[in-house]
Amino acid sequence: MTSRALWQRYQATLCPVPPALSLDVSRMRFDDAFLVRMQPALEPAFDAMQALEAGAIANPDEGRQVGHYWLRAPALAPTPALAHAVRAGIAQVREFASDVHAARVKPPRAARFTRLLSIGIGGSALGPMFVADALGRGAADRMSVAFLDNTDPDGIARTLASFDGALSETLVIVTSKSGGTAETRNGMLLAAEAYRAADLSFAAHAAAITLPGSTLDREAKTAGWLARFPMFDWVGGRTSELSVVGLLPAALQGLDIEGLLAGAAACDEATRVRDARRNPAALLALMWHFATHGHGERAMVVLPYKDRLLLLGRFLQQLVMESLGKRLDLGGKRVDQGLTVYGTKGSTDQHAYLQQLRDGRNDFFAFFVRVLEPGGSRLEVEPGVTAGDYLHGFWIGTRAALAENERESITLTLPRLDAPSIGALIALFERAVGLYANLIGINAYDQPGVEAGKRAASAALALQARVLAVLTPEAQSAEQIAARAGAAGDVETVYLLLEHLCASGRARLAEPAAPASARFTSR
Amino acid sequence: MTSRALWQRYQATLCPVPPALSLDVSRMRFDDAFLVRMQPALEPAFDAMQALEAGAIANPDEGRQVGHYWLRAPALAPTPALAHAVRAGIAQVREFASDVHAARVKPPRAARFTRLLSIGIGGSALGPMFVADALGRGAADRMSVAFLDNTDPDGIARTLASFDGALSETLVIVTSKSGGTAETRNGMLLAAEAYRAADLSFAAHAAAITLPGSTLDREAKTAGWLARFPMFDWVGGRTSELSVVGLLPAALQGLDIEGLLAGAAACDEATRVRDARRNPAALLALMWHFATHGHGERAMVVLPYKDRLLLLGRFLQQLVMESLGKRLDLGGKRVDQGLTVYGTKGSTDQHAYLQQLRDGRNDFFAFFVRVLEPGGSRLEVEPGVTAGDYLHGFWIGTRAALAENERESITLTLPRLDAPSIGALIALFERAVGLYANLIGINAYDQPGVEAGKRAASAALALQARVLAVLTPEAQSAEQIAARAGAAGDVETVYLLLEHLCASGRARLAEPAAPASARFTSR
Repeated sequence: MTSRALWQRYQATLCPVPPALSLDVSRMRFDDAFLVRMQPALEPAFDAMQALEAGAIANPDEGRQVGHYWLRAPALAPTPALAHAVRAGIAQVREFASDVHAARVKPPRAARFTRLLSIGIGGSALGPMFVADALGRGAADRMSVAFLDNTDPDGIARTLASFDGALSETLVIVTSKSGGTAETRNGMLLAAEAYRAADLSFAAHAAAITLPGSTLDREAKTAGWLARFPMFDWVGGRTSELSVVGLLPAALQGLDIEGLLAGAAACDEATRVRDARRNPAALLALMWHFATHGHGERAMVVLPYKDRLLLLGRFLQQLVMESLGKRLDLGGKRVDQGLTVYGTKGSTDQHAYLQQLRDGRNDFFAFFVRVLEPGGSRLEVEPGVTAGDYLHGFWIGTRAALAENERESITLTLPRLDAPSIGALIALFERAVGLYANLIGINAYDQPGVEAGKRAASAALALQARVLAVLTPEAQSAEQIAARAGAAGDVETVYLLLEHLCASGRARLAEPAAPASARFTSR
Repeated sequence: MTSRALWQRYQATLCPVPPALSLDVSRMRFDDAFLVRMQPALEPAFDAMQALEAGAIANPDEGRQVGHYWLRAPALAPTPALAHAVRAGIAQVREFASDVHAARVKPPRAARFTRLLSIGIGGSALGPMFVADALGRGAADRMSVAFLDNTDPDGIARTLASFDGALSETLVIVTSKSGGTAETRNGMLLAAEAYRAADLSFAAHAAAITLPGSTLDREAKTAGWLARFPMFDWVGGRTSELSVVGLLPAALQGLDIEGLLAGAAACDEATRVRDARRNPAALLALMWHFATHGHGERAMVVLPYKDRLLLLGRFLQQLVMESLGKRLDLGGKRVDQGLTVYGTKGSTDQHAYLQQLRDGRNDFFAFFVRVLEPGGSRLEVEPGVTAGDYLHGFWIGTRAALAENERESITLTLPRLDAPSIGALIALFERAVGLYANLIGINAYDQPGVEAGKRAASAALALQARVLAVLTPEAQSAEQIAARAGAAGDVETVYLLLEHLCASGRARLAEPAAPASARFTSR
């Protein structure tokens, strides 16, 4: 296609939503009739979305409503009670953050809370981390923020060590729907241990975000934590960034939560339009369908040309892959769906894997984010040229170099990086995921596949306890230990557990040898 | 397969390389004859690797030797001069780091250097960042380390702001083969601007790692920088972590560079063995071949169960994708090769996209890293159970849950996370990439595909200068400006540049409208 033809195509397909964003799909190689051809398939998706927003049970497997759009437009919630719950949550966040900032809520042994430790995983970490990094202003923030998002004791120790001497001014938020998520609970218990070691009351430094009546809610109430914030069972983890889950840490950090909500609400409005050419979420969903034949046959490589969007790819990885990676469609048919997402940032990633993108397997499309306002220094690194000109030039160059080799790309342009544009970005992808899921006939709001691993992990931990119980000062093989632990059929897991127990000092490798001949004793 | 059969398979296929690592490929679904069948195909790969190590021109496109294995075994270098160059580089690193730590090399206005700012991109950033994070000990490090790895002025400003008031004790390392890499040069220029603003001499705080005689080398010499360290044209960026590029920042941080080198050297020895069953790199290469039909048909999802290995996936993304993502094979035939790599860490990622891995598209295999020594707190989160038991249990559970649904995985076990094991991990993948590239007949050591984007970016910057030159106080359309700038055929690029120039205050959108009708003036 000539440059002139590309300019025509750019204009014809550009989907601007002033002032927040515009979506350029001109480098996707769909033909002129594609959007018209797909419009009928979109109609039921728009109908389903309308029903969802009106309060339908849009997550049938779990029998739940799906209400993340109400979070930024409570007036649209299907009942006054739901609208009230949303408004009350936001009001509670505002009031608590304001109380913390003004030291009306303060720690027992320091003048005020200056630091925040957020403990959560999945949707309770990825959105808050993304927003904290995208909008944080360093020393200008009201509070600094750190995260615990795993059950790695070494990783937890490292993060807690960075709080050495400052725990007395650190507020902890624990985010967990039930309180039963092991990573979050373990992070909380190890954090509490650090407070005890510093002779500080954990309860006097802690707030919970959880379902009312959950284990965590009851524990926090009993122990007299500073505050408890409600989660809603009609908001999934991966769409919870604009609920209290995301708003509370953002407000404490001093970020503009009104801007986040307003940006999302405006994008929601724009993505209710039933014409795909004027609806960036619908257009995005159609591009996914086009690029991947409605079956995830290409990965989406997320390349924001902005350091602050470093975590966008990880945030979208969850939102997209957990929503779309499904075994069965809504009719129960095996479909093995998905849409792989990876990518960090441009132009940095050009020096990592652009080689493969341009020359290697054509199994992806790029999703560029271009931010117009450059920020930072305007120093001319060459006459008339700034570092920001290079960043922008590299985006132009990479988009062209990919197109030249028939690699497709989409570009989202944001005028600047601020709370409204981040809110819009999140809302755009939430809606695109919902519409696309409907196009391919799957439930975007459940995650049945993650339970099997948790069950197998529980079984392994139960087996570990039995292994520990049958270890003796006398050396035994894994096979013998397995038999005595009632797991004669699963020697491999017993062997793996023994390796682990030896490394943590609870068993001893008495006779090193190949797995079948190695012998173990108690400590 | 029954649990008992899996135990047999585990034992039969396990590839241990004591004490550094062991590779478990039992959850790859190859048949018993596969390894035997592939052994003949490996022979030429071993021959080529032997020739490479002996000094052959293993990178034919660029007419270069490929010498990263000599970096940790200089005695093996093909000439005494090369061996000497390696030893001299390491000695210079040791001496400089020791001088900095002892304040024999010190900044003009502070007692000693306490902080390090490393400026580089691609191989000059990903390896050093990975190692700094994997082995860093926080406050116990000799120097803290931060990185500039992009040309985003906002991102650079944010990093530099974190040095506010501390630039006087900050040492800057600029790493660039030629000095011409724009991101690195721009980072250096903006850092130098910050030093000027703080009334400090940049040269008195800077060291260069570059090819002798390069632009950067000459500039550093002329300006009287603290030190200049040589790069070698026979070490590629993505295999340069165990050269001065990686060793200098690591040594300054206070990490065990002897351990890194020793671990890599030991792994190199183990991966010269010509029997794939006893050579973990050859085994890994064969698994890639098996899983992807020798054509990258599945992605490798890197899931280390250890927070410190958070950046392993990004490091491997470059090493693997830039090496294997090739358009042509060694015979010049179009092959569009590659092997996609993504992934962050377990168990965190289980809460992000395990749903798709287990239930969705079966288009990947997992590469787990399991670290036996848990570190951190041993608090019992339940009777007899630690946070580390959970982390280990989640690996067992996820491996089993994937296998149950016919998803394949490989597990690398490290006894602990220390310098030798990190050195071994890097060497393992360097060798696997080299062997696999030979199996599929491509050059693993060039990157011809990254030039096109740079050329297009240069053209865009040149066009931007012409656009700026023809802007007038009178409003003109993009089309008119393009014509006057001698780019009548490329109105789209002119329009995109105008958007960018408006946002950075160098042009003005006088009449907002659709792209073709919008009119622009000079500022």
